[in-house]
Amino acid sequence: MQLSVRIPIYDRSLMQLAAAASGVASPNSPGTSSSPNGGKGNPFIGSGAGEVSDQPSIASWEMWDTIRTICEYNVRLSLTLDLTPPLPADLAVLRQWVAEPTRFLFLPVSTFIANAKGYPVLPKPTQKFTRDIMKIQPNVILSGTSSGRHAKGGEAAYSQYVRHLEKTSPSVKAAHTPGTVENFAQGYQDYLQAPLQPLMDNLQSVTYQTFEQDPVKYRNYEEAIFRALSEWPRPGRIVICVAGAGRGPLVARCLTAIERAKKEAFVYAVEKNPNALVTLQDRLRLEWGDKVKILFGDMRTLEVPEQVDILVSELLGSFGDNELSPECLDGAMRFLKPDGISIPASYTAHLAPLSSSKLYNETRVSKDEKAVETPYVVMFQSINILSGDGGGVSGECGPQVQECWEFEHPRRDAVLNAQGLPFTNSHNTRFAKLTFHIPHASVLHGFGGYFEAVLYGSVGLSIHPQRMDKISKDMLSWFPLFFPLKEPLYLPSNCELHVSIWRLTNERHVWYEWHAEAFLPLPVLLDGELSQERRRKGTSSLSATPSIAASSLADADDTLFVSSPSRIMFEPLQEEPSGARFGLIKIGQTALHNPRGRSSWIGL
Amino acid sequence: MQLSVRIPIYDRSLMQLAAAASGVASPNSPGTSSSPNGGKGNPFIGSGAGEVSDQPSIASWEMWDTIRTICEYNVRLSLTLDLTPPLPADLAVLRQWVAEPTRFLFLPVSTFIANAKGYPVLPKPTQKFTRDIMKIQPNVILSGTSSGRHAKGGEAAYSQYVRHLEKTSPSVKAAHTPGTVENFAQGYQDYLQAPLQPLMDNLQSVTYQTFEQDPVKYRNYEEAIFRALSEWPRPGRIVICVAGAGRGPLVARCLTAIERAKKEAFVYAVEKNPNALVTLQDRLRLEWGDKVKILFGDMRTLEVPEQVDILVSELLGSFGDNELSPECLDGAMRFLKPDGISIPASYTAHLAPLSSSKLYNETRVSKDEKAVETPYVVMFQSINILSGDGGGVSGECGPQVQECWEFEHPRRDAVLNAQGLPFTNSHNTRFAKLTFHIPHASVLHGFGGYFEAVLYGSVGLSIHPQRMDKISKDMLSWFPLFFPLKEPLYLPSNCELHVSIWRLTNERHVWYEWHAEAFLPLPVLLDGELSQERRRKGTSSLSATPSIAASSLADADDTLFVSSPSRIMFEPLQEEPSGARFGLIKIGQTALHNPRGRSSWIGL
Repeated sequence: MQLSVRIPIYDRSLMQLAAAASGVASPNSPGTSSSPNGGKGNPFIGSGAGEVSDQPSIASWEMWDTIRTICEYNVRLSLTLDLTPPLPADLAVLRQWVAEPTRFLFLPVSTFIANAKGYPVLPKPTQKFTRDIMKIQPNVILSGTSSGRHAKGGEAAYSQYVRHLEKTSPSVKAAHTPGTVENFAQGYQDYLQAPLQPLMDNLQSVTYQTFEQDPVKYRNYEEAIFRALSEWPRPGRIVICVAGAGRGPLVARCLTAIERAKKEAFVYAVEKNPNALVTLQDRLRLEWGDKVKILFGDMRTLEVPEQVDILVSELLGSFGDNELSPECLDGAMRFLKPDGISIPASYTAHLAPLSSSKLYNETRVSKDEKAVETPYVVMFQSINILSGDGGGVSGECGPQVQECWEFEHPRRDAVLNAQGLPFTNSHNTRFAKLTFHIPHASVLHGFGGYFEAVLYGSVGLSIHPQRMDKISKDMLSWFPLFFPLKEPLYLPSNCELHVSIWRLTNERHVWYEWHAEAFLPLPVLLDGELSQERRRKGTSSLSATPSIAASSLADADDTLFVSSPSRIMFEPLQEEPSGARFGLIKIGQTALHNPRGRSSWIGL
Repeated sequence: MQLSVRIPIYDRSLMQLAAAASGVASPNSPGTSSSPNGGKGNPFIGSGAGEVSDQPSIASWEMWDTIRTICEYNVRLSLTLDLTPPLPADLAVLRQWVAEPTRFLFLPVSTFIANAKGYPVLPKPTQKFTRDIMKIQPNVILSGTSSGRHAKGGEAAYSQYVRHLEKTSPSVKAAHTPGTVENFAQGYQDYLQAPLQPLMDNLQSVTYQTFEQDPVKYRNYEEAIFRALSEWPRPGRIVICVAGAGRGPLVARCLTAIERAKKEAFVYAVEKNPNALVTLQDRLRLEWGDKVKILFGDMRTLEVPEQVDILVSELLGSFGDNELSPECLDGAMRFLKPDGISIPASYTAHLAPLSSSKLYNETRVSKDEKAVETPYVVMFQSINILSGDGGGVSGECGPQVQECWEFEHPRRDAVLNAQGLPFTNSHNTRFAKLTFHIPHASVLHGFGGYFEAVLYGSVGLSIHPQRMDKISKDMLSWFPLFFPLKEPLYLPSNCELHVSIWRLTNERHVWYEWHAEAFLPLPVLLDGELSQERRRKGTSSLSATPSIAASSLADADDTLFVSSPSRIMFEPLQEEPSGARFGLIKIGQTALHNPRGRSSWIGL
């Protein structure tokens, strides 16, 4: 049996209650105080529009969250969003519904208004929301179509209009447009793929074929190589090495770039995979002739006839370094000239906290304990990134998607042995502590992992949600990484999420570990003198201190209440912005995930 | 390999930090503001003594909590409490250490002071703490004993003194005193026992023997029966029925009570267990003669020769009704006269939130999913009851241990069929929603379940932690019930815990389900008019509204910030106590435990 709970997406009655009970002015009274777009601006002062509407939509979501939590995320329990009430202008707070099992939209004709011609249409916000949620293909339930409420169009008008919204939905359009990720990824949405182990396993021909379909990636590589050649300082023969040539797409791009740049250059193609080697040899004979030499072997050990000027590689994973590119390139640096360059020159890993009941349930299907600690490759669809841009309440939070770390090639700092290889891999370990602002109450199910790479100069590759379209639009080769959580972590509105993530390594493996703590930032109440004194001491907000400290130091009481029994007050922000102080109350934490690499990348 | 982490029980340096960072005055400055004894008094105003010391001890505990959480409660990780720093006068905040794997106490001689005679002794608070923690038998590590720091006694003096503390520890003394629960329960501390199923199974003779050892229970039963007989209104023969006679202890007590009361009375002994019947028949022949008649069968169906005046039963479980006493007595009411009485007359179930890393780990040993959803019978030792007495910050919280529900016998409200039996068991379902104040940051691992019974008049039985010594001191028959949680729930200082618990039933089973939500009560900041208006409206604190609502209505922003950009302030409590308003921010929740009775009592 399937069960679907009908919930009003937005309920003013709940809001009235909220206003009354919590002392927030009612919607009609001017300038209420909640801050829907979270960190933006001064949290103490209402910022109009979307404002008041934050509460009732949160109320609806919290109701749903309690129900499904009590039902243990049962997959037979779905959600019917009742779109009867008018929606807020600011839809940010409604994004969460995409990450829930929203199977039906309930649309009574009373929600429709008449357009100039008298035909039924939806109010702008409801229009936009419906278009957006079409991404997860809910069934639309129309009610009262025979009531003749609207002058024109009759019963059919409503369904026609809804179909029109569907057709004009950005994600639906994208899915029907060849060349887009949405179109390429049909059927892969929210599907968990175990990440590749290219170093341990030899990729199959079909895998290469899939990746070679990507027009954008190779275009950018060619452009990077072209610019590197064009700007090459010294005259004469330039030696290029493609480390990990696969079936040869990068070799071919090198040759085109050489032609375009009108340079004298020679290409070595290094490949360890015998399956791919066959194809390489064919292409050498049929296409490349003496412009290329194929070297069969592992780039970390193989002997190369001469030192090279430009080392071209494509060993990147969804998180940049996760397919062991740093370790492989360390091994290849042996045959790069001291002043030689690497394409890519560098790459960075990025993280964002997200909610997705779908993905949470997917990771729980398997009984294997590794299943909830494995970073999966996923084409995200039913997810919601929970972090907001801006500094949050304490002003100490980073952007919505945050950088964890960077790898640069060639790197000069590693200590090398006689063979030119590093003694240990410790220089490739990394740690990052990130602070996210969570504007709206939600549940954390995991993290999205993304990468960005600088190939050469301004040419790059990116799957960073906010920047990919600028840097490498419609690139198909990488879906994001999903770092799951064993247990959901509840996050109230305007809390702070402190995320720790490690890249760790031993003789054979590389893996990630992750852990998160939630804090509620609360204004520290002061009377005049105390604040004076503290300003002298120059002690400001807590957020800078490490969470363990912060948590332990901030008890609800000591952040809220002060010594003097006299009137307690904030320092008015607008008179003196520097005066604000915030304490952090720890309210929750996750387990440490994937300790000692239960799930790891193998092949060192 | 075993690993023990040494942590200062209390660290002033952390406190200084706290003071600086969170705006709380330094320990030296008078009247700081944290409220260690939580709800008591006005949370806005410091209350001296234990006060300042709350922070650093919480800091130590939070450090430990983060470490062991990251280590997933690994059983090989234990704790070494460093008693170097002087302890606070108020030890309440230190109770949590009993619930942690405190395997060692680190005691440097520098902690010792010299007594009048110059011998080394510990400061009063450290003395008391050490005595209390001896309950869980930690190993004491003395350091620097050869330093000759103290004039008298030499090296041996320190260990002699520690042994003296151990001998004089209340729990150690109790363990050595025959007749106490501590002595009776040797070896059973923190051991999880599956609760009895007396209705489904026939108890074995050895089980009866254990229970019959309890002097207190039968003494109180005899006293209750004696008073009932003495106060019996009508002259002439009184008919008593012992429903569930077992091996006859209650029958014997009836006869003694009859003698003492000098009444003419006859006793029916009803028993369904053939094993016990044998013993009953022997006792009838050898002791009781014609004063007693034995009836073999189930009290819910068996035919009794005549209606009885007094129905005596002892079918109680640790949670009162958990061994199906209500259902059995419903069946026995058939043969109780309309004006007859039941001993017990009523019983209540009580609950308290607790922390215990030991019990949490015990429930995780088994792979059976039922294991983390079964209420176990446990002799509590390494546990800490987290709730505080008093109303908490919002003033809406109940006492430390709270009553869930009550059962009364005889009950007149049940609808009966021709056989005098209820048509359904729905009248025996119960629901309670309890609100606890949590004064100190801690982790919730489950709940303690207790019962209290009124046998007759002022004679009762109780395992209620705060009242058992008054009502039935040294009663051995019942250990508390432990309701576990699948996952620990982190609770910050001064938060509120809302616990829902159900007693549910179907044709054959009775079971409990439980669920909890955590909230942080935050003062609602008002400017004058707004508060005026609200007082007119008469809307006060949120705590009264159901949590789902409460949670949804209280976003960090709307409870914290108000409309007017002008100076924001609390209404000063002492000038106008009624003026305080609190909003609740939901910060966490547990799963619903034991849905549909995965673990249940069988036999209806």
